[in-house]
Amino acid sequence: MKRITLLSILVSSLGFSQTSDEEQLKAIYNQALTNSKCYAQLEYLSNSIGHRLSGSIGAEKAVKYTKQQMEESGAFDKVYLQEVMVPKWVRGEKEEAYIKIKGKKIQVPICALGGSIATSKSGVTAEIIEVQSLKELEQLGAEKIKGKIVFFNRPMNPANVEAFHSYRDAGDQRRSGAKEASKYGAVGAIVRSLNFRLDDFPHAGGTSYGDIPKEQRIPTAAISTNGAEILSKQLKQNPNLTFYFKQSCYQESDVLSFNVIGEITGTVTPENIIVVGGHLDSWDLADGSHDDGAGCVQSLEVANVFKNLSYKPKNTIRVVMFMNEENGGRGGDKYQELSLKNNENHIFAMESDSGGFTPRGFSLEADDTSFNKIQDWKTLFEPYLIHSFIKGHGGSDIQDLTSKRIVKAGLRPDSQRYFDYHHAANDKFDAVNKRELELGAATMTSLIYLIDKYGI
Amino acid sequence: MKRITLLSILVSSLGFSQTSDEEQLKAIYNQALTNSKCYAQLEYLSNSIGHRLSGSIGAEKAVKYTKQQMEESGAFDKVYLQEVMVPKWVRGEKEEAYIKIKGKKIQVPICALGGSIATSKSGVTAEIIEVQSLKELEQLGAEKIKGKIVFFNRPMNPANVEAFHSYRDAGDQRRSGAKEASKYGAVGAIVRSLNFRLDDFPHAGGTSYGDIPKEQRIPTAAISTNGAEILSKQLKQNPNLTFYFKQSCYQESDVLSFNVIGEITGTVTPENIIVVGGHLDSWDLADGSHDDGAGCVQSLEVANVFKNLSYKPKNTIRVVMFMNEENGGRGGDKYQELSLKNNENHIFAMESDSGGFTPRGFSLEADDTSFNKIQDWKTLFEPYLIHSFIKGHGGSDIQDLTSKRIVKAGLRPDSQRYFDYHHAANDKFDAVNKRELELGAATMTSLIYLIDKYGI
Repeated sequence: MKRITLLSILVSSLGFSQTSDEEQLKAIYNQALTNSKCYAQLEYLSNSIGHRLSGSIGAEKAVKYTKQQMEESGAFDKVYLQEVMVPKWVRGEKEEAYIKIKGKKIQVPICALGGSIATSKSGVTAEIIEVQSLKELEQLGAEKIKGKIVFFNRPMNPANVEAFHSYRDAGDQRRSGAKEASKYGAVGAIVRSLNFRLDDFPHAGGTSYGDIPKEQRIPTAAISTNGAEILSKQLKQNPNLTFYFKQSCYQESDVLSFNVIGEITGTVTPENIIVVGGHLDSWDLADGSHDDGAGCVQSLEVANVFKNLSYKPKNTIRVVMFMNEENGGRGGDKYQELSLKNNENHIFAMESDSGGFTPRGFSLEADDTSFNKIQDWKTLFEPYLIHSFIKGHGGSDIQDLTSKRIVKAGLRPDSQRYFDYHHAANDKFDAVNKRELELGAATMTSLIYLIDKYGI
Repeated sequence: MKRITLLSILVSSLGFSQTSDEEQLKAIYNQALTNSKCYAQLEYLSNSIGHRLSGSIGAEKAVKYTKQQMEESGAFDKVYLQEVMVPKWVRGEKEEAYIKIKGKKIQVPICALGGSIATSKSGVTAEIIEVQSLKELEQLGAEKIKGKIVFFNRPMNPANVEAFHSYRDAGDQRRSGAKEASKYGAVGAIVRSLNFRLDDFPHAGGTSYGDIPKEQRIPTAAISTNGAEILSKQLKQNPNLTFYFKQSCYQESDVLSFNVIGEITGTVTPENIIVVGGHLDSWDLADGSHDDGAGCVQSLEVANVFKNLSYKPKNTIRVVMFMNEENGGRGGDKYQELSLKNNENHIFAMESDSGGFTPRGFSLEADDTSFNKIQDWKTLFEPYLIHSFIKGHGGSDIQDLTSKRIVKAGLRPDSQRYFDYHHAANDKFDAVNKRELELGAATMTSLIYLIDKYGI
């Protein structure tokens, strides 16, 4: 009796039933590690479909494939597409670049940044000037910049333990480098790839010209980290060297694409919606296996695990493959637009878009009450080495989603290797470990189970 | 004043000075992530030296290289070798194996297990019988086993989150399969590789014949997981199929080798020794970059970081490259033997021998007082996502080390990928991520710093 009383006190003070939840989480992890489909689905997305840049054939195939997977799984009450017009940017021919020193050419690997304009057909040749920041660019001003190519070469800071902090800190060069350089009359912008490692992969990613008029826009490309090191070294020896690059990328008209949605109708409060997703589109240099094939198949796995465990959620669970996260965010916008229009009530939104690595926890957008409630569940996750629940960003596709009261969560996998592959030609299936991917899916499923059971 | 009082209470209750230790750990992680040598040293060990099986030329070169690195670093007061006789097992020619069905041969990848005897020159051909455990072998008995090859095919259990638990549970087949099968008159033993993944790498590792007389010993090899799946499937279709394998491994006489030791003399209590190490030897199929090149260069890095931070330890710090962990443990034994002989007092021993992956914590062999003290330091480690301090094994090379009062610790890196590479031909430099390796080194250095400062 004494033990029961103590247990009751514990349960009521923690606000959850430790034992049955422990068992349920055990069952969830067990399912994900022994009976999941997500790794095979990722193999298909990666190796049979390949890249899924918005508006591409790959993206179209991925819509069909994931819709079919949802339908065939039997895990959903409803599967449907949500129409969304997406931008279509096309890379064109493989880019070319070299450093020119006294008639000698040193080839370096580059890739056009997403959204960039092309160079002229004969390419751009100009003196190149290295800067470490947008601020340094501003200090140099038009006098030093006009007519030149600007080379943004600030590396990601290796001292941050959280790799995403370094990405955020160095990312302004890629996102705004061309826009800012064009204001001072630069003729091109070359940006060091957002990659800690020294290797030969240029890393793609979006750039924005903001409100710069079309005729003032300048072409911009990422250079591999090894290429950046060579260029910087050569510049020290010969400050007047010239750089050549050529790219033929272009923007086509917007095309029709889709968010793919599978829904499990809630048994008690179906009007309350829990959404979980990843983005189906990817950059075009590889297969987007980590970014974000992993998040898509993990989201599918949430429903798969619930089905295998015969768990009937109280609230409606919606699994969403968002389209166009990489270069527009139109899928997330459309989802939010229709949610508002249909007067929907979302209580929880989760995104997995940080790679298919060993899960470490979640970053949470929540008021203190909800945040503390989720923190209380930490002991349930510790057997799975999930320890880190912090306040932070949920995910790009859910960031604008509003509701009466909503908690958002982003899965936080181990971040150390993410930028080895991010937006680069090596983001392929063999870079994903089956167990790490599955543990992520189990961790997502577990938090959704707890939210579904106890509310926010 | 009030704040100071509160702080004093906090400090005395926690038993350490939060702020200065926070700063010191920050400096340690910063050093390791921005100014470490360990990744370059691992590249040399892996790519310029290669495998380091006890008694091999690689092992000899690795002794010279790490001694030289210690000497050149200026981080040590004393660098020396410790003589140790080690077994020399040689693989010989590449092994060959195939399944024979109605005159058709299906090749499968195998490797002789370390310590195994050779087959005859013409190989072994026999019927093969699949078992899932040593217990099943016993149940079948001599009647079913005699004259056959035994195929141990129990996979590692994917349901364990901690991969080492699955390794431990499935490992009896490799360690004792041949010994046990020989008791029932088997003519060979083929063991499923200890690898969660389905791939084509056979994984080496030691086997033991125990006290089985030489003439009764039978040859044994590991088969790749894909090979095991094929073999099992074929056996279901044709229970009488025969298997062929050939290997020419042999044991030579013991040879002289060395533990490599670097010592920083303690400034206050030099008689108290803190030892940190990894093992310099590796299996012979690849470069042993994770197992255990990583642990060696991380241990070297501990001294490097102390030097760069001008930290003078109170106790003597000994960095040891142990020889022959993989097939004999003679280096660890010799270290302990000489420690006893010299009446040394070890207060702390740490080993890193679980791969160069993102560190998660430590497994600790400690009495409750010391264990709780280390647990109290957890908040210092949390900014680096180190959360997991559990009671458990320290490491093979330090397991027999005794002293008046000693705490032992094993670095616990993330375990999910370890068995993708363990003892196999893909345990190469490119399987190690620089940041993950460095974070491990920083984590080791941090705990040693705290132990050195506060004692056990």
